Amino acid sequence: MSADDDAPPADWPKHASEHGANLLLFQPRWDLRTNPRTGERMRRLVLETADWVNVVARTKDGDFVLVRQFRFGTEHVTLEIPGGVIDPGEAPRVAAERELREETGYTSDDWVCLGSVEPNPAFHDNRCHHYLARGARRTAEQELDAGEDVSVCLLGAQALRAAVASGEVDHALVISALCRVLDLRGS
Amino acid sequence: MSADDDAPPADWPKHASEHGANLLLFQPRWDLRTNPRTGERMRRLVLETADWVNVVARTKDGDFVLVRQFRFGTEHVTLEIPGGVIDPGEAPRVAAERELREETGYTSDDWVCLGSVEPNPAFHDNRCHHYLARGARRTAEQELDAGEDVSVCLLGAQALRAAVASGEVDHALVISALCRVLDLRGS
Repeated sequence: MSADDDAPPADWPKHASEHGANLLLFQPRWDLRTNPRTGERMRRLVLETADWVNVVARTKDGDFVLVRQFRFGTEHVTLEIPGGVIDPGEAPRVAAERELREETGYTSDDWVCLGSVEPNPAFHDNRCHHYLARGARRTAEQELDAGEDVSVCLLGAQALRAAVASGEVDHALVISALCRVLDLRGS
Repeated sequence: MSADDDAPPADWPKHASEHGANLLLFQPRWDLRTNPRTGERMRRLVLETADWVNVVARTKDGDFVLVRQFRFGTEHVTLEIPGGVIDPGEAPRVAAERELREETGYTSDDWVCLGSVEPNPAFHDNRCHHYLARGARRTAEQELDAGEDVSVCLLGAQALRAAVASGEVDHALVISALCRVLDLRGS
């Protein structure tokens, strides 16, 4: 920060909170806050959301373990890394191992935490934890939830970078994990 | 894709759609679909959401133009790149120029599209468009919405990479834009 920078903004005081109708994936909450810049009170929406996890899994040959699935928001089949919702009380690393195994049948003994991000701090209150699983091998059968239909495929690093560049891989949380492992400049 | 890969999954047929109560930022919609793997019908949530834009703006010296603001989801002040919601009928590039000018007072004559991503295809139907503004200069005053209180600061490339590595910069959509311009491996 240089001397020319603005002073950081203040927090917005919260006066009240009220929950809306549950949306299963989220619990909406309306907070009444004051904008410290103007003194104006306003309602702001929060979607209370469980933490998420996703996994960059690579085989001993360096191939990436990817999943294809129909996504309900964008209504098409995507190419992504495995991931999902962390269960209540479950450690992020345990969830990462579980999601990789359930969605792909792959497991690994060599795990590295790649950090975590805020999926969207404007309205989500959760984090997404990124993991790297090295030397992943197919040792189990898929165990899909009733709400899932997931296909597995392998892609080398060059092909995966090309898939990001072409937009075939374009889920922001997938990009956020992959850029800890691949240089995505020019993608 | 190799010969060992699974066949891609099928789309989920949609039988009906029903909108829920409007959440201002989103219009919830419940779709009734069939899982093609099991034949089971289930309701799936979509948050109909306007497209978003964010901007990697650099001065002629290569510094990055960043913003600090209190975020309602995570209830703390974040360090991010400028961005916001694209207005109805507005072109993404026009929204990028507007958001940069309104939030920071910076403008540029040298714009590059960095591509776009799906913020979360599991439940959002929108895209976030990433732009690079080169040679950005402070030529205007901020024009903040009633719901905003934004401070501006500049950071060099090395300091910004360190801020990603430390987790000070951790909004996934900001990471998704920055990794098109900075190598974030090891961050």
